[in-house]
Amino acid sequence: MAVRALVWGENVHEQENEAVAGIYPQGMHQQIGSLLTQDPDISVATATLQEPEHGCSEARLAETDVLLWWGHAAHAEVEDEIVERVAKRVWEGMGLIVLHSGHFSKIFKRLMGAPCALHWREAGERERVWVVNPGHPIARGLPRCFELENEEMYGEPFSVPEPLETVFVSWFQGGEVFRSGLTYRRGAGNILYFRPGHETYPTYHDATVGQVLRNAVKWAHNPERHAELLKAPNTPVDQAPEKIVERGPKLHAHGAEGLR
Amino acid sequence: MAVRALVWGENVHEQENEAVAGIYPQGMHQQIGSLLTQDPDISVATATLQEPEHGCSEARLAETDVLLWWGHAAHAEVEDEIVERVAKRVWEGMGLIVLHSGHFSKIFKRLMGAPCALHWREAGERERVWVVNPGHPIARGLPRCFELENEEMYGEPFSVPEPLETVFVSWFQGGEVFRSGLTYRRGAGNILYFRPGHETYPTYHDATVGQVLRNAVKWAHNPERHAELLKAPNTPVDQAPEKIVERGPKLHAHGAEGLR
Amino acid sequence: MAVRALVWGENVHEQENEAVAGIYPQGMHQQIGSLLTQDPDISVATATLQEPEHGCSEARLAETDVLLWWGHAAHAEVEDEIVERVAKRVWEGMGLIVLHSGHFSKIFKRLMGAPCALHWREAGERERVWVVNPGHPIARGLPRCFELENEEMYGEPFSVPEPLETVFVSWFQGGEVFRSGLTYRRGAGNILYFRPGHETYPTYHDATVGQVLRNAVKWAHNPERHAELLKAPNTPVDQAPEKIVERGPKLHAHGAEGLR
Amino acid sequence: MAVRALVWGENVHEQENEAVAGIYPQGMHQQIGSLLTQDPDISVATATLQEPEHGCSEARLAETDVLLWWGHAAHAEVEDEIVERVAKRVWEGMGLIVLHSGHFSKIFKRLMGAPCALHWREAGERERVWVVNPGHPIARGLPRCFELENEEMYGEPFSVPEPLETVFVSWFQGGEVFRSGLTYRRGAGNILYFRPGHETYPTYHDATVGQVLRNAVKWAHNPERHAELLKAPNTPVDQAPEKIVERGPKLHAHGAEGLR
Repeated sequence: MAVRALVWGENVHEQENEAVAGIYPQGMHQQIGSLLTQDPDISVATATLQEPEHGCSEARLAETDVLLWWGHAAHAEVEDEIVERVAKRVWEGMGLIVLHSGHFSKIFKRLMGAPCALHWREAGERERVWVVNPGHPIARGLPRCFELENEEMYGEPFSVPEPLETVFVSWFQGGEVFRSGLTYRRGAGNILYFRPGHETYPTYHDATVGQVLRNAVKWAHNPERHAELLKAPNTPVDQAPEKIVERGPKLHAHGAEGLR
Repeated sequence: MAVRALVWGENVHEQENEAVAGIYPQGMHQQIGSLLTQDPDISVATATLQEPEHGCSEARLAETDVLLWWGHAAHAEVEDEIVERVAKRVWEGMGLIVLHSGHFSKIFKRLMGAPCALHWREAGERERVWVVNPGHPIARGLPRCFELENEEMYGEPFSVPEPLETVFVSWFQGGEVFRSGLTYRRGAGNILYFRPGHETYPTYHDATVGQVLRNAVKWAHNPERHAELLKAPNTPVDQAPEKIVERGPKLHAHGAEGLR
Repeated sequence: MAVRALVWGENVHEQENEAVAGIYPQGMHQQIGSLLTQDPDISVATATLQEPEHGCSEARLAETDVLLWWGHAAHAEVEDEIVERVAKRVWEGMGLIVLHSGHFSKIFKRLMGAPCALHWREAGERERVWVVNPGHPIARGLPRCFELENEEMYGEPFSVPEPLETVFVSWFQGGEVFRSGLTYRRGAGNILYFRPGHETYPTYHDATVGQVLRNAVKWAHNPERHAELLKAPNTPVDQAPEKIVERGPKLHAHGAEGLR
Repeated sequence: MAVRALVWGENVHEQENEAVAGIYPQGMHQQIGSLLTQDPDISVATATLQEPEHGCSEARLAETDVLLWWGHAAHAEVEDEIVERVAKRVWEGMGLIVLHSGHFSKIFKRLMGAPCALHWREAGERERVWVVNPGHPIARGLPRCFELENEEMYGEPFSVPEPLETVFVSWFQGGEVFRSGLTYRRGAGNILYFRPGHETYPTYHDATVGQVLRNAVKWAHNPERHAELLKAPNTPVDQAPEKIVERGPKLHAHGAEGLR
């Protein structure tokens, strides 16, 4: 069965900015989706900020294996309730790929527990993305590096947690570097932050970027769901794996819930 | 100059539960503090839930190098504003040591971005804490393992992010295991989660637990503060480290703030 | 196409020790192989110490996606040349699963760069293996824990590098704990150390152990080979991605090899 | 008491190459040492390839807290016995800082278990070293980045294990990037790989490089030695932490050594 990707697009600058609309006439989410559908083992749906529940209803997320998130101008308009819903799904095992300016999205900051800040410059300069971890599944089939002739610069320090693995590091024409591909797991959910994708440039028309995203969707896919990771069950004395006898003073009455 | 530790105690069960009051007549925070003051290079202050701003005013935190956090019954009563203040200070470089039932504290969940759930049993069983990383500064001077004759059981899976390093793993008499010492960094702040410390047992009267906490305070201490890690400054074209010429369409007017 | 596993067995105690021969009449490698063939997507071959080149010829390794390694009594008899050959293949992308007493095999110590020592006791005691990372592909479909009624004890500290991820932690009846499933990557090759499997007990007849090994083979499989990771090529000035002019004194004549 | 640093210099190009001799008339090891002695809490000794036992006698290493290693032309001339001796000391807790072309030293490859290869170009181009982890002790007091006007280029992929933490990433004028500061622990020993330092350029006359090295020496210092991490002791049944009864068949006679 195909991996079910859901591409979430903020869909604001496409509507308001001519340059962006020119590059992404159907919206960025549609173009990102079209990169994914080049792999017959990935099925694609899209969602936008403007839809009810931002297109992230419980039912929709229940049918999603990997969520891709692109947002920039309207992070604050994403309802907190939806953010918590997405976080919960990630913890249960849904994959999440956060793109570019999504570093400041509520959902990414929520899952990182860190500022997620960086330095930036919008000058259409050259970015060269280097593969520093060629054995990682996300780097499969990639060249040693690839260039994006016009991109926004993001510069270090990127105040995120130390990742499980660093997959990409970017060189910028103006003199900065950036860790452009970073992996995490939160609960049972795999997370990739992937840097490129400023909306005024045709990054999501780039074939290598497409390959990265398809690789990432497959890497992030966890076929299982682990709702139990959100619970804190009591194991009563008589169900302990080894036989023990209760001792000492107690706070909790038998059968009581733990404190949260 | 001494490392300035602030021991935060919820101070609820000490007031309400006779068993807890018997073990910790001055409150758990005072007893934890007394373990720290055995090291002349650590100075200790305390704070409790009941104080204004929970004892965590801006001024107090500005004078704190490492915050220790013990809470259980009243996580929900900690004001969100204070939680954000503490998170911000950690990101800037204040150390944080989260104790036992603090795994469900707002501040720990905030910084982990994960459920932080586990299995538990309150039966006064034996816990044996094993040092799995003897070269880590937190393990300095410790024996290969140490026993707590009566403790609450915490069992895996502990749904936290993969740590920077695992320092301790606990064995429980009832048959479970738990990763009892886990290190993280968020922003410039060092974080340790340390498992032992159920309030109905005399864990914070244990000499080896004291040694762990003193080691941890010193390890977590970062003499610098990095407020810049919370900001996302623009680097204009004319201040780029390498000379570049601006190209392509732009979203941002010159000198404009970035979007959040 | 199926993942091609090669199960390497030392095949010494099976020939010399009645108890081992009774449990593994065809050799441990055959029994481990039979666990793997339960998955139609895995094809299995075996190799032993006694074969020419220990069954690890260049041709055989070229046809191997994932190598499983069980050895104990005769680590020293494995030729250094074969160890280097296997290490090289791992760096290029072959997966490696090191089992139980293989912690002291030449190949594991070679790839870890660490002592790989531990404490031990052969008393047929109970081991309970806990899944601490349920979202990891190696833990797919597993229960929260599983028991091996008779196993050798391995105790911490296990002097290996901090892993990419800890997947399993074991509880032992005699009071010790051990990190039983640890993942690494060296070059492009994925490595799992998996603890259970003392030869005097029927561990490789256990269905859950079989599930772990099948999961591990699939996780460790890298379809690519990265021979370039062993080379240190010069990038001449005229092939630099950005145009630069050579400056300053030089050690190396144009076109010379680097120093090793 | 001061941290006792031992600076090991290969001391070959200083003797044979005029450009190198001009920059480092007393040898690179002396100049590196002079950077360290700017900190009164560090005491410095030096050692070279040409000394008996390469200046790394058991006695010398026993008095060393942190070893710094610079080599390039003569890696192969370092005796294997000395390499094993140094590795053993690192495992026991001696710190190790590997500099520049030391990525191909026997000791670094021994401890990494990986190819440690990279791409390179000797063109005197500009390197800009960015701090990606400002909260790390090795980055203390550093600016956001620092420039070395003439350096050798090292390019990714750098085939080393994923580090505990990435501290620095370098930008090169010719278009490449490199992870220039990577931390590891092997046994109880802290290890830093730090990239800059090609012998034909005055890198070790740079004040910021000096600050990095002083920070690194203090970070790498472990006051304890853990010789026990190299041993694999048996814990007999009657000394098990919990009372157990021996069961099942056995390989090992009582009191026998384990197999290696």
